[in-house]
Amino acid sequence: MQTPFKIAIAGLGTVGQGVVEIIQKNAVLIEQRTGRKVEICAVSSFSASKKRAVEISQYKWVDNAAQLADLADVDCVVELIGGENGIAHELVSHALDKGKHVVTANKAMVARHGLKLAQNAEFKNVALKYEAAVAGGIPAIKTLMQGLAANNIKSVFGILNGTCNYILSEMGLSGRGFDDVLKEAQDKGYAEADPTFDVDGIDSAHKLCILSALAFGVKPDLDNVLEATSGIRGVSALDFKIAEELGYKIKLLGSAHQNDAGEIAQMVAPCLVHKSAQLASVDGSFNAVFFDGDFVDQVVNVGRGAGAGPTASAVVADIMDIMRGDESAVFGVKTRDLQGAKWIDASQNDDRFYIHLSVDDKPGVMANISSALSTHGLSIDELIQRHYHVDGPVSVVMTTHKTARGSLDLVLEKLKSLESVISIDSVFRIIKF
Amino acid sequence: MQTPFKIAIAGLGTVGQGVVEIIQKNAVLIEQRTGRKVEICAVSSFSASKKRAVEISQYKWVDNAAQLADLADVDCVVELIGGENGIAHELVSHALDKGKHVVTANKAMVARHGLKLAQNAEFKNVALKYEAAVAGGIPAIKTLMQGLAANNIKSVFGILNGTCNYILSEMGLSGRGFDDVLKEAQDKGYAEADPTFDVDGIDSAHKLCILSALAFGVKPDLDNVLEATSGIRGVSALDFKIAEELGYKIKLLGSAHQNDAGEIAQMVAPCLVHKSAQLASVDGSFNAVFFDGDFVDQVVNVGRGAGAGPTASAVVADIMDIMRGDESAVFGVKTRDLQGAKWIDASQNDDRFYIHLSVDDKPGVMANISSALSTHGLSIDELIQRHYHVDGPVSVVMTTHKTARGSLDLVLEKLKSLESVISIDSVFRIIKF
Repeated sequence: MQTPFKIAIAGLGTVGQGVVEIIQKNAVLIEQRTGRKVEICAVSSFSASKKRAVEISQYKWVDNAAQLADLADVDCVVELIGGENGIAHELVSHALDKGKHVVTANKAMVARHGLKLAQNAEFKNVALKYEAAVAGGIPAIKTLMQGLAANNIKSVFGILNGTCNYILSEMGLSGRGFDDVLKEAQDKGYAEADPTFDVDGIDSAHKLCILSALAFGVKPDLDNVLEATSGIRGVSALDFKIAEELGYKIKLLGSAHQNDAGEIAQMVAPCLVHKSAQLASVDGSFNAVFFDGDFVDQVVNVGRGAGAGPTASAVVADIMDIMRGDESAVFGVKTRDLQGAKWIDASQNDDRFYIHLSVDDKPGVMANISSALSTHGLSIDELIQRHYHVDGPVSVVMTTHKTARGSLDLVLEKLKSLESVISIDSVFRIIKF
Repeated sequence: MQTPFKIAIAGLGTVGQGVVEIIQKNAVLIEQRTGRKVEICAVSSFSASKKRAVEISQYKWVDNAAQLADLADVDCVVELIGGENGIAHELVSHALDKGKHVVTANKAMVARHGLKLAQNAEFKNVALKYEAAVAGGIPAIKTLMQGLAANNIKSVFGILNGTCNYILSEMGLSGRGFDDVLKEAQDKGYAEADPTFDVDGIDSAHKLCILSALAFGVKPDLDNVLEATSGIRGVSALDFKIAEELGYKIKLLGSAHQNDAGEIAQMVAPCLVHKSAQLASVDGSFNAVFFDGDFVDQVVNVGRGAGAGPTASAVVADIMDIMRGDESAVFGVKTRDLQGAKWIDASQNDDRFYIHLSVDDKPGVMANISSALSTHGLSIDELIQRHYHVDGPVSVVMTTHKTARGSLDLVLEKLKSLESVISIDSVFRIIKF
């Protein structure tokens, strides 16, 4: 009989409490499935006296989370504090130095410091696991590391942020604008008081950065993703109305594709998705991750991207993997085998596009626009000209056939220069899946 | 540096050739991801001289597959012959006896003999893995065993047979009948010359039996599933037409649910799925598996349920798990911890139903039917009476609110006894997901 596997938990917010609850409630099942008991031996959070949904008085309390790593009997430190730097990073670095396994839900830290932390974990021959950092309850990391391990991955993409997906779904259903729906999401607790990380796409960028490293065996490069990240503040109620007319929904997607030359394009942006596509039916706070492998073809995972239960489920699954002796490399391969990626500019990828212009209601406008398009060989699939707002400008909306982004940029430059074009309101990619 | 991991492959059909191809093509990647080289050291199939898509002349040829287990240097036998009994079962039993790890894609064998084989594997302390047996390239087994391992699973269900899903999708799209579409599927190689296993739901039953054992930690019981299995031969073009009018698609689903008392209901049957549901967008040869866990809530995996590449991807993923030292219990927990399930009759579950009757075109028919329904308190959601075929009988189609199957059966009995009811053409469950 093996001794119990002893863990220390740093951070007792909703996810931390969820982890405690699973370990208390599903103890028998965890032991049967791993062949070993799990035991929480210490916890740390901001306040020992705070009222919590789970009983924690039986666990040793430590005021300074970083000291959890110093406890001799701890096998594994579970970091649920969050944040790219600060106490979370300090604790995890220290725990690895001390030869403790680490499980974390911290996407910002893994995206930014993952390579260095992975090197430390390798050096000490311990595990560093982060399933909960990407897409909550969806086992996206394990799907890449185990389920699809035999494949050369060609692309990974999906809906990676539940807050944005909730807001976009609500905008689509209700016809309301971004500010209005964001306010409601904040009131309901679905969005943070400061929603920047979510609605500006930064959270999705963290997750995409991690997925990309794992999928392609490259060093995580957060800055490369952030350079090609745009959020959902610019998506208007009118865009939803027009997209609906054309048969599309609008989703914030993170995507990473590797071309045949081994170059990788990463991007986070709002995209149009046809209503009949798989992704279109993933609404509310659900996340979806698509994988495309050279043998398996497409695999899609859908599930809850956040929340106490789903995220804690992912954390405990990682703990159980370690209990079963899994010591897979942190990013799927040893850090020495992680390549420096040849990044290419995702914005230059060929695609179909949706373009929404506001124009003056004057004779000859459409002739000018058409001429600008044809000059650069941009081929239009569908076109709507409509007066959506009485007294407002006229909207001209076009969807293009597949086109080089370079040609599109030339056309957009030309359109901007036309006197009759008041503004280019939105340019979104149209995604097929 | 560890010695190469040596495998012997029995069966060189499409999947066997796919496995050889992956191992040849993705050798570097497999080594980086597992820290070890994999080496095919012997193969066996019906004919050594047959022309194949992959080069196998460099591997030792063995005429009698069962003898692969006798090769001293083989670490792992890969069984891709198929069939519940016969040479496949003989080889796997023999390999486990000899202390070899086993990877198989054989759903019939695992469903029927899994418990005994798992006991053998445990006794010899070797792995028996079968990811490819369920839902092809979708890592459904690993999702249950690793990704959702922290959860008490409440239900698992999905589209488990690509041939049926292809046929039903085609019937839905084209309006053609079952026989016609089956014939085309056979001509295209999507269905076997003898399609019984697929279209009568037996293949889905095998897969559901395995998922159920893993999800609930119970001994696999194939006969229990087969008793509650119906296939798709009875689904008519008219059912599709009517379902379409009502906003539904028809899918063959396998489902296993555990109630709060720990009783489990297993079933394979054609069901109506609302068009807006996730499952409805899973068409053609794709499979989908839904999991419902007490903490993770719903997780869905979608991917290709068959074909050389996807199935071989799952086989090689299993091999790589073993190479990384994974020795998880065969059904997630040790065989001594597998419970004898308390099965309940799935047909008695409360649900919404679709009922399609053919009736005589006479006055008073609807009054008789309505009276039969109200007598037994069956509440109707929607009703269509229509003359779909000139000169044919009148169709009466009803969808019910959620009802006890017991009440439904009484109503069906009563309807059968009515002189004006010519036939009860179909009774399908309506599934929400």
